[in-house]
Amino acid sequence: MTNAEKALQMHEEWQGKLEIRSKAEVKSKEDLAIAYTPGVAEPCKLIAEDKNLAYKYTIKSNTIAVVSDGSAVLGLGNIGPYAAMPVMEGKAVLFKEFGGVNAVPICLDTQDTEEIIKAVTYLAPGFGGINLEDISAPRCFEIEERLKEKLDIPVFHDDQHGTAIVVLAGVINALKVVGKKKEDCKVVVNGAGSAGIAITKLLLRYGFENVTMCDKSGILSKSSPDLNWMQEKMMDVTNKEGKTGKLADALKGADIFVGVSAPGIVTKEMAQEMNKDAIMFAMANPVPEIMPDLAKEAGIRVIGTGRSDFPNQVNNVLVFPGIFRGALECGATQITEEMKLAAANALAALVPEDELSDVNILPAAFDPRCADAVSAAVKKCFLDSCK
Amino acid sequence: MTNAEKALQMHEEWQGKLEIRSKAEVKSKEDLAIAYTPGVAEPCKLIAEDKNLAYKYTIKSNTIAVVSDGSAVLGLGNIGPYAAMPVMEGKAVLFKEFGGVNAVPICLDTQDTEEIIKAVTYLAPGFGGINLEDISAPRCFEIEERLKEKLDIPVFHDDQHGTAIVVLAGVINALKVVGKKKEDCKVVVNGAGSAGIAITKLLLRYGFENVTMCDKSGILSKSSPDLNWMQEKMMDVTNKEGKTGKLADALKGADIFVGVSAPGIVTKEMAQEMNKDAIMFAMANPVPEIMPDLAKEAGIRVIGTGRSDFPNQVNNVLVFPGIFRGALECGATQITEEMKLAAANALAALVPEDELSDVNILPAAFDPRCADAVSAAVKKCFLDSCK
Repeated sequence: MTNAEKALQMHEEWQGKLEIRSKAEVKSKEDLAIAYTPGVAEPCKLIAEDKNLAYKYTIKSNTIAVVSDGSAVLGLGNIGPYAAMPVMEGKAVLFKEFGGVNAVPICLDTQDTEEIIKAVTYLAPGFGGINLEDISAPRCFEIEERLKEKLDIPVFHDDQHGTAIVVLAGVINALKVVGKKKEDCKVVVNGAGSAGIAITKLLLRYGFENVTMCDKSGILSKSSPDLNWMQEKMMDVTNKEGKTGKLADALKGADIFVGVSAPGIVTKEMAQEMNKDAIMFAMANPVPEIMPDLAKEAGIRVIGTGRSDFPNQVNNVLVFPGIFRGALECGATQITEEMKLAAANALAALVPEDELSDVNILPAAFDPRCADAVSAAVKKCFLDSCK
Repeated sequence: MTNAEKALQMHEEWQGKLEIRSKAEVKSKEDLAIAYTPGVAEPCKLIAEDKNLAYKYTIKSNTIAVVSDGSAVLGLGNIGPYAAMPVMEGKAVLFKEFGGVNAVPICLDTQDTEEIIKAVTYLAPGFGGINLEDISAPRCFEIEERLKEKLDIPVFHDDQHGTAIVVLAGVINALKVVGKKKEDCKVVVNGAGSAGIAITKLLLRYGFENVTMCDKSGILSKSSPDLNWMQEKMMDVTNKEGKTGKLADALKGADIFVGVSAPGIVTKEMAQEMNKDAIMFAMANPVPEIMPDLAKEAGIRVIGTGRSDFPNQVNNVLVFPGIFRGALECGATQITEEMKLAAANALAALVPEDELSDVNILPAAFDPRCADAVSAAVKKCFLDSCK
C-alpha cells in the first residue's frame, strides 16, 4: 500500500481526526445541576460583569480557532473550505500533540476579505486565539492586520510567521556553522507570497541589511509585472537601489538563499555562483528548489528543506504550538515582533554549539523541548513588556 | 458549600468543560506523513471534487456547532456571548454524554440578525449540523428559517423545538392517563416567546384544535399591545374567533396548561377553574408558574415542571442529543415537522402503558433509551421520505 493509499484509508477510519471530550462528568442529577442548570448560571453571572473571567471559567483559557478559507491549501491551491478541513484538523492534532492547546478547525465558506474579518470577529469570544491558515496572499496580510487591530486575543498567520521564525532559527545557527556575520551577508528570498514576505520582514528586523526578494519574474523591482500592494511595499524596502535581473543574477555572490517557491528552479550552475560557504533553504514541497545532493555538488555548505527525509528540516511545527501555548499561559493579546525574534533565538539555542554542523542546525520536529522553549520565550517577552 | 459555590468551584477547576482530543496518533514522522503532510492531501483532493466526501473523511460526519449570541440565556436574559459560554459548553457536554455527538460551542459577538445568519453560513462547512441556542425571540424565528433555507445541514433551535417535542411527548402520555382525546381538549399556552410559540405550533400540527396563547397581557388578540410579527401570526392561527381576556379567563374550563413564562403567575384559584382531570406543565425555571403541591390542592391531575426534584420533569435533554445523532447518522439535511412528531411519539412510547400514571408520563433524563428512540424516529422519517 502506498503512503497515499494508507492516508486515505486512515482518514476514512478516523472519519474526522478530532473529537470533543467532556471534562465534566455528568452521571447524575447532581452532576447535571453543577455542570449545567442551575449551577452553570454562577460563572455566567460573573462573566457578564467582567468578561475577562471567561479565561477563568471557560475553554477560552486554552482553546484557539484554526481558521481558513481554503484559498491556498498546501500545494493544492484554492480547494475551498470543505476540502481544506483535513488539513485544518491535522493542524489541530499538532496543536494538541505538540503544545497541549485545544484547537477547533473553522473553514469559512467565503473568500471575501471583509466577510472573513467579520466572521472571525464574531466567533472570537469563545476562543483564546486565532491561528489563520492557508489564506492566499495578499488577502492574508490585510486579514491578519485588521484582525489584530480588532481583537483582544492573539491572531497569528502561521504560514507567514511560523515559517519565518523557524527559518530565522535555522539561519542563526547556520551562520555560526559557516562563521559569517549577518551584517556581511547577502540574502536572497525567492517567492513573494505570504511566507516569503514574512521571512524577508523578519530577517530585516533581525538585522540583515542586504535582502533581495525575487518572484517568478526575477528581482522585485519597478519593472516587475503585476506586483500586489504588499509586494510593492517589500520592493521599496528591499530594492532601494533599483536592482533588476533574474533569480540567477540575484544569486551571484549571495550568502543565503531562502526558497518558498517552486520545485527545481535553482540549477546547479546558479548555486555555483553563490558565495563560499553558502546556506540554502530550499523549502518548496514536496520537491525543493534544488535537491540537496545537487546543491552539495555545487558547493553549498548548509542545506535545509521542508522534508523530513533530509537533514535540517525546516518545519513550523517547531513553532506554532509553543507560540499559542505561551500566549495563552501568560494572557498575551498579541504575538509581537519581539516574541517572534525571541522564539527564533530560543529554538536556535536548543542545538548546543558543540553539536552544530552542516547537517544539524535545527532541533528535530519531535523534540519536546521546542514547544517549551518557544512558549517560555513568548512569556518572557510578554512579562518584559509589562515592566 | 452551597450548590452555587460548588458550581463555581468546579467551573474554576475545569477551566472550560471541553477539550479537543486527537483520534490520530502522531508519535513518529510516519504518523505525521499520514495525518498531516503529505498524506492529508489525498482526502483533500477527493473532497475538492465532491464535497459530500467531507462526511467520509472529516469531523463533519459527527460534529455540530452550538451557536448562541447570548441574547436570551437561561433565565439570565441578554448576558452576551462571553457569559453565554458556560451554558453552551454545558450543552456540548450533554450532546456528547447523551448522544455521542461532538459539539463545539460558538458564541457570536453580534446580535444582528443578518450578521448572525452570515456568520453561521460561513462557518458551516466543517459542521454536520447547527444547534441554535438561547437566541431571543422573534429574531430566533427568522434566523432559523433563513438558515434552514440557506444551508444543506440540519438547523435546529433547541429552545423552540426540543422543548416542544418533549412537551408533546408528555401531553400524549398525560392524555392516556386522564383518558381524554386531543380533539376534545382546550389547551392554553402561556408565554409567547420562542418555546411557547414552537409548542403551540407543534400541538396544532399534532391535531389539537383549540389552543389559546397568552402572554403578559393575556390572550393574544388584536387588542394585545406590542405583538411582534410572529406573535401576530400565532394570534391569527389561535384566535380566529377574537377571544379576549386575561390568563385567568383563558384557563376557565381548560384541559391542558403549558407555561413557559414566569414564576408563580398561576394562582390556586385560577387552577381550580380548569376542567376536571386537568394537565399542567408549569415550566418556568427554577420557580414554576404554580408549585406542584398547590396545583394538586387545586385539583389538577397531572403536573409537570422543568425541575428534577419533582415528578414529570420536562427536560429537552430527552430530545436534542437524539435529534442530531439521528440526523447525522442518516444524512438528513433538515429536521422536518414529521421528525418532530415522530420523536415525540417515540419518547412517549418509552413509558409502557401499564406504568403510566399521574406522576410518570415521561422517561427520566438519564434514561439511555431516549437518544436511541429519538434518533431511530428521525432516521425512520428520513428513510420514509426518501421512498
